Amino acid sequence: MKALVYHGPGKKSLDERPLPELAAPGDAIVKMTRTTICGTDLHILKGDVPTCEPGRILGHEGVGVIEQVGAAVSSFKQGDHVLISCISSCGKCDYCRRGMYSHCTTGGWILGHRIDGTQADYVRIPHAETSLYPVPAGADEEALVMLSDILPTGFECGVLNGKVQPGSTVAIVGAGPIGLAALLTAQFYSPSQIVMIDRDANRLEVAKRFGATACIDIGSSDAVTEVMKLTDQTGVDCAIEAVGIPATFELCQALVAPGGVIANVGVHGVKADLHLEKLWDRNVSITTRLVDTVSTPMLLKTVRSGRLDPAQLITHRFHLEEMESAYDTFGRAADTHALKVVIQVP
Amino acid sequence: MKALVYHGPGKKSLDERPLPELAAPGDAIVKMTRTTICGTDLHILKGDVPTCEPGRILGHEGVGVIEQVGAAVSSFKQGDHVLISCISSCGKCDYCRRGMYSHCTTGGWILGHRIDGTQADYVRIPHAETSLYPVPAGADEEALVMLSDILPTGFECGVLNGKVQPGSTVAIVGAGPIGLAALLTAQFYSPSQIVMIDRDANRLEVAKRFGATACIDIGSSDAVTEVMKLTDQTGVDCAIEAVGIPATFELCQALVAPGGVIANVGVHGVKADLHLEKLWDRNVSITTRLVDTVSTPMLLKTVRSGRLDPAQLITHRFHLEEMESAYDTFGRAADTHALKVVIQVP
Amino acid sequence: MKALVYHGPGKKSLDERPLPELAAPGDAIVKMTRTTICGTDLHILKGDVPTCEPGRILGHEGVGVIEQVGAAVSSFKQGDHVLISCISSCGKCDYCRRGMYSHCTTGGWILGHRIDGTQADYVRIPHAETSLYPVPAGADEEALVMLSDILPTGFECGVLNGKVQPGSTVAIVGAGPIGLAALLTAQFYSPSQIVMIDRDANRLEVAKRFGATACIDIGSSDAVTEVMKLTDQTGVDCAIEAVGIPATFELCQALVAPGGVIANVGVHGVKADLHLEKLWDRNVSITTRLVDTVSTPMLLKTVRSGRLDPAQLITHRFHLEEMESAYDTFGRAADTHALKVVIQVP
Amino acid sequence: MKALVYHGPGKKSLDERPLPELAAPGDAIVKMTRTTICGTDLHILKGDVPTCEPGRILGHEGVGVIEQVGAAVSSFKQGDHVLISCISSCGKCDYCRRGMYSHCTTGGWILGHRIDGTQADYVRIPHAETSLYPVPAGADEEALVMLSDILPTGFECGVLNGKVQPGSTVAIVGAGPIGLAALLTAQFYSPSQIVMIDRDANRLEVAKRFGATACIDIGSSDAVTEVMKLTDQTGVDCAIEAVGIPATFELCQALVAPGGVIANVGVHGVKADLHLEKLWDRNVSITTRLVDTVSTPMLLKTVRSGRLDPAQLITHRFHLEEMESAYDTFGRAADTHALKVVIQVP
Repeated sequence: MKALVYHGPGKKSLDERPLPELAAPGDAIVKMTRTTICGTDLHILKGDVPTCEPGRILGHEGVGVIEQVGAAVSSFKQGDHVLISCISSCGKCDYCRRGMYSHCTTGGWILGHRIDGTQADYVRIPHAETSLYPVPAGADEEALVMLSDILPTGFECGVLNGKVQPGSTVAIVGAGPIGLAALLTAQFYSPSQIVMIDRDANRLEVAKRFGATACIDIGSSDAVTEVMKLTDQTGVDCAIEAVGIPATFELCQALVAPGGVIANVGVHGVKADLHLEKLWDRNVSITTRLVDTVSTPMLLKTVRSGRLDPAQLITHRFHLEEMESAYDTFGRAADTHALKVVIQVP
Repeated sequence: MKALVYHGPGKKSLDERPLPELAAPGDAIVKMTRTTICGTDLHILKGDVPTCEPGRILGHEGVGVIEQVGAAVSSFKQGDHVLISCISSCGKCDYCRRGMYSHCTTGGWILGHRIDGTQADYVRIPHAETSLYPVPAGADEEALVMLSDILPTGFECGVLNGKVQPGSTVAIVGAGPIGLAALLTAQFYSPSQIVMIDRDANRLEVAKRFGATACIDIGSSDAVTEVMKLTDQTGVDCAIEAVGIPATFELCQALVAPGGVIANVGVHGVKADLHLEKLWDRNVSITTRLVDTVSTPMLLKTVRSGRLDPAQLITHRFHLEEMESAYDTFGRAADTHALKVVIQVP
Repeated sequence: MKALVYHGPGKKSLDERPLPELAAPGDAIVKMTRTTICGTDLHILKGDVPTCEPGRILGHEGVGVIEQVGAAVSSFKQGDHVLISCISSCGKCDYCRRGMYSHCTTGGWILGHRIDGTQADYVRIPHAETSLYPVPAGADEEALVMLSDILPTGFECGVLNGKVQPGSTVAIVGAGPIGLAALLTAQFYSPSQIVMIDRDANRLEVAKRFGATACIDIGSSDAVTEVMKLTDQTGVDCAIEAVGIPATFELCQALVAPGGVIANVGVHGVKADLHLEKLWDRNVSITTRLVDTVSTPMLLKTVRSGRLDPAQLITHRFHLEEMESAYDTFGRAADTHALKVVIQVP
Repeated sequence: MKALVYHGPGKKSLDERPLPELAAPGDAIVKMTRTTICGTDLHILKGDVPTCEPGRILGHEGVGVIEQVGAAVSSFKQGDHVLISCISSCGKCDYCRRGMYSHCTTGGWILGHRIDGTQADYVRIPHAETSLYPVPAGADEEALVMLSDILPTGFECGVLNGKVQPGSTVAIVGAGPIGLAALLTAQFYSPSQIVMIDRDANRLEVAKRFGATACIDIGSSDAVTEVMKLTDQTGVDCAIEAVGIPATFELCQALVAPGGVIANVGVHGVKADLHLEKLWDRNVSITTRLVDTVSTPMLLKTVRSGRLDPAQLITHRFHLEEMESAYDTFGRAADTHALKVVIQVP
């Protein structure tokens, strides 16, 4: 089969690889129909994720069709259309039982990282019954690819952790795909304001279209001044960090109101300053989270009821054999205006 | 009347001052019977709290007897014995209505800070009806002084924010009066382990007596190694920071388990490093809080029912005229083994 | 001044009454500009509320302008436009401090019940600072009358108690003004389904327009069968009872899914059967509540941000001197299709 | 093997039965070492549980040793000592994923009910990995039998659902084994009062020893009068119903304070009156629940840390061949003063 293989920092190629095989009774083999590329894949290619070794097939998102299941899998059978969660979850360990699938002792984020992933014709999914979701009848399968990672990440790490509530004021720092996913799902709770902050005019325009009540271009405005103006000089109830660098995390500290939450979504490579000398008496919370995808069933319901339209995050489409172009387009998002690129398989 | 007055960094004296007078219909004048000294008073004397100006009578804790009430005060009358909250709360502003009395727009921590405090024969209490609590019949009034600040602080900022639950594992960094208050009130929730961490052998001995299940002297042991040993190499569900310096806040980051909470109680003067490069995917929360004293009624109930004995925090007793000795004893706690010193008035 | 006075069961008249006067330092006198009639007023007139004595001016909703304030009132002054809460709250008692304003020991629902109410030219409001809300600049004051009672009631007793969440399924039994208020505010949380159940075709049509995803006319369909069909034979996560009779409460028991909530909003005059023999092992909650109006500030924000349009609940308008017609129109709602009638004062 | 078999209403016998065999890859065969009898077993014998058919081996509690595991079971192996949960849970269905194991679509309470149970030499446990718990090293295995059903039931259905908190007032109606389990586990949260209500003087004496702060014998006192006296005429924050008849459920309605919770634990055979005409405006919650045993890991921790001593619930011991005497002793609890009887196997 064809597969996009990581060959060490800066190197990848579309290679011929043997078909995956069942390795445990709980496994399933899924024939991919669509996958996508994540910012994390770019991190791996930069060499930022040493736990991902050369030879690994990349990708942790996608939809497909069950090809084969292990002896212990009873809820799926050949031919079932499934959504793949970026998080593999055994359903049995202490973490899984507490809803922290991200920390599953034999799962978590392993696809396209510690085991071969979804940017291929086929993929082996461990713990299939608790890591796959049936595609609802009549669903737009392409759109569901957004539910593998990006929408639960924006929702769980940003909106749920951020305790967004009716009437809340929210600031989202970073209007990339994850920030936009947070923007879309924050609206589930009817906040009174959602202020989007970025330095890319195109993305801010998308944000406006997606429901942001205000947009701040930090290339030309001071975010703190603007947010304070919008919130009677109080700050926001919830500041969502969706970039992953010290500067944006510090910005969130300046934006949050007493009693508010800073919900970190960004993947950080270095430490940041925490201004406890200012925050110690402000009754704030700061949260971190690797997405657990516990909200996937709920998100499927909101898609089915029409309250969430994931398709609007898709800007480009490719075929698996065009994988190099797909990476190139996604990697130069500032120029190409790419949000999510969908890869049709084969 | 006699009053302990701050005269600028390093300077204080027991002065003669005029009696306080009612300034608003919601005020009460309280004749003090007992007060105490707080670590914060030492901070003021070091010059760390510039919002406290020279000439200020210090003190924000104590019990006393109502001497006089303003026209709008109906729930207290002359002769009532009252517990004074360190936090003044109007009960009307948005923050008060949300239970964030610490951020009351006309109150908060003002006693002995922005207005004259309790280390005196008399004190004026603004917003009396929502900042004083009736002393229950038969209560040990001296012990209740511990409920003005230290016990609600340990409980709200440490235990409540830290989400201590039955079966939880808890580490408390800092066995001073506040850390010990957290230790006493954490036991309300029956955690399975409470590990106390300090470098003062005497305080660790007190902690053992107060219910710590393990004590770590960081002068002689590595706290991280020891805590990991006690928790199957997982870390604690709740790490309470009760010191207020970068080193102890960083220690908490190393102690907390995935899914856990770092509850900051300490007063910080400088920023600290936040290791987001390690914590971003560990599903942790970090909380800060200035005590709101919303838990005072509950704490009074647990004292009345015998489940909490605040008196054990008191190590020394003085009279108001011995205020200088009291400060000296409290200030040299490592030598004197002082936890809380109670000042009898007059 | 003119006032609508209750003279015992079945009797009311628009009488001339003396102007109200300040009775306590926390009082305010409000010159009414608009008020309305509540289903509860009809209950009083039927003689169902014996705690309301003849001679009482009715009404517990409305907006107006501050005429005079007591000595202890500092946050309002003459000329301020205010929204009147149907619940008077002292802000000081144990219940108020816990957000249960409905059970305020010197307040609660007293307006137009135990003290004179708002269907008059002027009204005295006790505990003014914690029972009135400033009208935001530029607000549609008429629409805000819906925030005195009906919208917080539908929201707090129905939606909040019912724990409506993104993706939830909700059934609302009763499409009167309160049921419709629950319908409007349930949408703050993006449930996947809201099924409205009534026997009045007109009200169901309004419900459809207000966002119901399905409507069941129990005159012609079996509600249980229909709801089960809509929910894969599981029942709803949240059943809101907005009528107040045993039959509708029993219907809710048949509609609720395992793990779900029955949120009672209706005012009940008699006991109902609770089928514990069916429910004991279904992990359900049943909640009751007299509105606390703790959500009023939040509702004001959602109105200001345009996420809630209360004006759509208003069907008829009258002047104070037409009070008899107003009651007649509101009392014959099935014929007149009245939802809320607004009374302009004077 | 020997097994206690139900033969229809009123009939049971200790029969010879074939050894159970693995039926699915997730099954385990457990060699029992200890089991017990539950009040529910008596209900079955009375014919109250028609879903339990003649020929069924009874029992849903116990500890034992793994004899054999199916192909999909990786976390247990032959020889492991295990605690059996009364609730079988697949860990995969929607209910299990939400922590409602009691409603597992292929599990729930099936042991000794819909499939053969634990009052036998061996038992087949479906969904073994998520329905068994490893016995901690050094544990008193006999005492752990109390964790199969009774302690999680008292804790989850009574204490957790009842939202017991530090300082709370609690009334428990019914001092049988379940009521006493609620009493023991309510103390995890340090309530200020726990009032035990029953008509059996012996059980009330046990309750006193187990930590009840007051006991009311309803044979000689009026429970409502006494509870009101103990709570300043307010009622209790939490009323736990641990009997299962209309009279005790109605008593709870009379005991609960405004804002309180009635947590139903009892198994009800008939409907009860719900006094909505009194409760509609009192902001109360009523909860029902079949135990989920989600709290088993936490309870194991509290046993290990010494905060909970389950052994004190055991009053009698028998061998499997004495099963008839064991049932007789347990069935005549008023005379024999039996709480829980432990059956040693073989």
